[in-house]
Formats: sequence, C-alpha cells, structure tokens
Amino acid sequence: MEFPSKLIEDAVNQVSKLPGIGKKTALRLVLHLIKDRPESTFALTDALNKLRSQIRFCARCNNISDTEICNICASHKRERSMVCVVEDSRDVMAIENTAQYTGLYHVLGGVISPINGVGPSDLHIESLISRLTNGEDGIKEVILALSPTMEGDTTAFYINKRIKDLPVKISVIARGVPVGGDLEYADEITLGRSITGRTLFS
Amino acid sequence: MEFPSKLIEDAVNQVSKLPGIGKKTALRLVLHLIKDRPESTFALTDALNKLRSQIRFCARCNNISDTEICNICASHKRERSMVCVVEDSRDVMAIENTAQYTGLYHVLGGVISPINGVGPSDLHIESLISRLTNGEDGIKEVILALSPTMEGDTTAFYINKRIKDLPVKISVIARGVPVGGDLEYADEITLGRSITGRTLFS
Repeated sequence: MEFPSKLIEDAVNQVSKLPGIGKKTALRLVLHLIKDRPESTFALTDALNKLRSQIRFCARCNNISDTEICNICASHKRERSMVCVVEDSRDVMAIENTAQYTGLYHVLGGVISPINGVGPSDLHIESLISRLTNGEDGIKEVILALSPTMEGDTTAFYINKRIKDLPVKISVIARGVPVGGDLEYADEITLGRSITGRTLFS
Repeated sequence: MEFPSKLIEDAVNQVSKLPGIGKKTALRLVLHLIKDRPESTFALTDALNKLRSQIRFCARCNNISDTEICNICASHKRERSMVCVVEDSRDVMAIENTAQYTGLYHVLGGVISPINGVGPSDLHIESLISRLTNGEDGIKEVILALSPTMEGDTTAFYINKRIKDLPVKISVIARGVPVGGDLEYADEITLGRSITGRTLFS
C-alpha cells in the first residue's frame, strides 16, 4: 500500500502493530482520527500514555491496580481463605462479573508455553507459593482457574506439583458442557469430562 | 464491565470510541499495551500525536499531504486534463493502487448525506468548480468516482447539476459485475446496469 503522507504511513505502521489490526483497519482508524477533532486524538494518546507510565500491579496478587495493594486484596469483605489462580487480569474481570466468587486472586501473568518461550520462572508462581507458606491470608484452598488448553493444563499440572505438599486444598474449575450449549455439538473430550465430572442433581 | 483500575477504564473508553472497536476489543488492545514494552505505547501515541498536529491537506485537491501541494498535483508526469472526483483519501489510494489512472484528483471530504447532516457546503465542491473555471490545469474531463450508494449517487447528481454547463466532459466510473464475481450472485440492479452499460467486445 502506498501512502500519500509519511505521517499517515508512520501512524498506520504503529496502529497495525496492535493484535488483530491489519494495515487496512489501521488506515481506516487513522483516517477517522484525521476527520475527527484533534482533541479526540489527543485525549486518546493522553489516556494511553498515562496508562502505560502510571499503571501498577498489586504487590500481593499481581492484578492491575492503581494502588500498591489492589481493591480486592485490600477489601475486608473478601473471603481470605480462598485464592483463585488465573492467567491474567482479564480473567479476574470475567470471574468478578459472574458475582459467584468472593475470595482472593493470584494473577500468573501468563501460562507456561515452551513455543512462546514462557517458562515457569516467567510467571508469578514463586510469589503464589510464598503467599501460601507465609500464612498471611490463611489460605485454605487454591482454585486453579486456567484455560482448558494445552498451556493452561500444563501450568495447572506444574503448580499442582509445586504446592501439593502444602496444607491447602487444590481444586480446578469444572469442565463440562457450556450452559445454553447443545449437547450434540459438544466435542467428545468436553462431553466425556462432563460425564466423569458429574455432580448430584439438586 | 468493571475495571480494576481507573487508568484502564479511561484508556478503554478512549480506544472504544474508534469506529468498529467495542469495549471488549478495546480492553484486549489496552491489556496488550500493558504487557508490551512501554516504548511500544509511546511510539504509537507519538505517531498519532504527530499525525494529528502536523497533517495537512493539499491546497488544490484536498488530498492528505505532507506538503502544501500534494505529490500527485505537483507531479509533471500526471495528465492534467483529467480530474477524478472521489469521496476521501482512501479512494485516491485505492485508485492509485490500480495503476490505471494517470490524471489528477479532487477529494470532496465526504458525500452529501442529510441523515448525517452533511450538505453540499460541507464538501469541497466550490473548490472543484473554481479549479474547472480558472482553467489553471486545463481540465477537459471530470470523472465522478463516487461509491454506488444513495449518498454517492446524490452527490454525483448534485455535482453534475453544478458543472454541466461548463465546457468539460463529465463521466462516471463503470458499474457492472465485479471481475471474478459469479453472474448468478450479482443483484438485479448491478446486472441490469451491466447490460445497459455494455461495451464493445475487444
């Protein structure tokens, strides 16, 4: 693609570095910014600059936070005996939206993925173990809420191996047919797991 | 959606103002920026700020340009007797990519759209007329290359009405079945136009 302006070219190149945004979409976004008031662009770039320079991570759970200890870790209303281990902050938001969980979180910052060069030492696993051993929160249960993928399962397996001798219960979130899903469209592995992991009808 | 941080919330709100980007996509992009090196974010915001504050429009054809007169208008290789009227700079890029057109352009900056509150006076139509009347480029043909939509057709009709008494030929780009398209999937209007607008087999 040939651009009529170096400024456009630079902007398109930068925007198209974002995940899921190609050159054509980037050009559409950039031309939108040119058409819109200059203040819109400056408000956008200001918010992103502030975000990137001021963002902090909770010293306890590594969740995104504006303060040293995040709202969830600092709250007196949360059950401190449970910690839910998740891949990233998006998962925390997703679980919070369900309003079904009242415990604490621990954000790993990724999953073990040899293909992408991510090993256990790149994740916040040591800080999880020290949270469990120092007994500060009195954690009694660790819930592994990782994605049901190869990487997620590997990470869950690794964490289980590291903490299985500690005096905490280790659980994983239920795998089964999604609510609203049609049984005949469920893949065999999911359907198989939904049978072996069946619960009492209540 | 509840956000763990005011910084994230502000950034997501700004990013989701972009066309075609919702809150979920915005959050994904914002979390990507947090995960990436800070320099990536600053390079992005810098390119956008520079773009918005330094971008100029060609004094003749209103195309995006880094200089007062754009490369196309300034080029000695372009045929100066033809001017192609388009909606925006993206259309200029699209037509340039075909390598089938060697004339000049005139960018309207939009199309007449009463629903969106865009009237003829919001577009660069007067400057087109003065280009045709002052005879500077010696334009002999105006090619209307507007989208085959209600708004595009209305705009073409309006421009035709305004310039039809000037000593210039007025043409529109051909409408017909797209190259590579299957005839049976073409809509009736397109197929009808492809028959009335048939050309000699060569």
